[in-house]
Amino acid sequence: MQRYKLIIEYDGTNFSGWQKQKEQDTIQQRLEESIIPLTKNHVEIYGAGRTDTGVHALRQTAHFDSKIYLEPFVIQRCMNAHLRNIPITVLNVEKVAQDFHARFSAIERSYIYKILNRKSKPALEINRCWWIMQNLNIEAMNQAAQNLVGKHDFSAFRATGCQAKSPIKILQKISVTCVNDLVTIEIIAHSFLYHQVRNIVGSLYMVGIGKWNNEYFLEILNGKDRTKAGQTAPACGLFFNKVKYSEI
Amino acid sequence: MQRYKLIIEYDGTNFSGWQKQKEQDTIQQRLEESIIPLTKNHVEIYGAGRTDTGVHALRQTAHFDSKIYLEPFVIQRCMNAHLRNIPITVLNVEKVAQDFHARFSAIERSYIYKILNRKSKPALEINRCWWIMQNLNIEAMNQAAQNLVGKHDFSAFRATGCQAKSPIKILQKISVTCVNDLVTIEIIAHSFLYHQVRNIVGSLYMVGIGKWNNEYFLEILNGKDRTKAGQTAPACGLFFNKVKYSEI
Repeated sequence: MQRYKLIIEYDGTNFSGWQKQKEQDTIQQRLEESIIPLTKNHVEIYGAGRTDTGVHALRQTAHFDSKIYLEPFVIQRCMNAHLRNIPITVLNVEKVAQDFHARFSAIERSYIYKILNRKSKPALEINRCWWIMQNLNIEAMNQAAQNLVGKHDFSAFRATGCQAKSPIKILQKISVTCVNDLVTIEIIAHSFLYHQVRNIVGSLYMVGIGKWNNEYFLEILNGKDRTKAGQTAPACGLFFNKVKYSEI
Repeated sequence: MQRYKLIIEYDGTNFSGWQKQKEQDTIQQRLEESIIPLTKNHVEIYGAGRTDTGVHALRQTAHFDSKIYLEPFVIQRCMNAHLRNIPITVLNVEKVAQDFHARFSAIERSYIYKILNRKSKPALEINRCWWIMQNLNIEAMNQAAQNLVGKHDFSAFRATGCQAKSPIKILQKISVTCVNDLVTIEIIAHSFLYHQVRNIVGSLYMVGIGKWNNEYFLEILNGKDRTKAGQTAPACGLFFNKVKYSEI
């Protein structure tokens, strides 16, 4: 048995997210189908992050096992040929040890959230950003965001249906930056609660438009009440960025 | 009569280019339709550059005349509302003097060409780049490109069907740069021959993959023979970037 690590990019717009579901078009399903011509039998692909409907990925990471040995470049070529008319692409394939697990070996995941901050609706960035017309105060957003760094009970940003045992997470880094009219929010943590990133962005938006100040944002975090926090930011602005592993 | 200047962004993928044509979906047609609710009668929109099928624009510039005075922000809002489900957006509207002409007052046009240089097909950049698998030598491409700066007979890069009176053009600047796997070619000139940018990119590609050296590229330019130059690079990688006017 040989285990392989995959790095994958996709445009999530027309998929029902990562995870396989009956009668839904999902990334996981498409990837598994693209390997069958090589392995001849079904293989299960495990992803580092199960992205939602409409969420994209720059360097999603996954693994699978093959009963027969295959050259990594042959796997990559076969998968991409099979996926040629589908907005999913395999960026890299490599052999890994059997104890590597795309999800459980991850020590850091990073997400990027993109906001187009201008008066005019997006044309080139349709489905790739959250369009916000009101002027955003980037410095205030970045300052408020720093309250989240460290170990916190993130109940205020936890969606119902979250399967995590605990609402306590350690957020390693968050930054809000802006180049021209494109605002980029990067968030790094070992793992996240369900909708945590999008719920954080929805609350930072309230700071950005001047409805909340830094103190109020901190109160929201400490209040642990999801109903008091901001909206869930749209899926289309979210990109699963990359995963860090201890060693491989 | 009041003249207005428009700045427009669009995704050209599903349009038959800028210029109006019978029974074709074009940018110009869509823009003109989006003004009718305001002006009540047809207005002609003149663009700075008539982009081809599949070519995009970041800051295309255009103008039109209105018999009735309208506030610029009202025009912008109305046009974008009308274009809401279409990948065309009006970034700015301003009043200009009657002697301003989007096409004839332009003193500089800039185009950007994007190449995705990696083994894996694009997923997020589908229809927004030319995908090239072979390793490109960016430095060699940039060096060869510098041969084009200045006044030259660009017949080698002129498509049949070009309506320009002369093949002589002055190229002001060209640069080939690379960030990660994204190669950006920027070209600035007062004006261009038909397919000139895409034909230049097709020949720089030959340098990038090592088939042509700098001397041979220069020979191609000096030979003035279109049949000896490289292929026409795909439309999807081309972005009309912006226009410079003397004053407004």
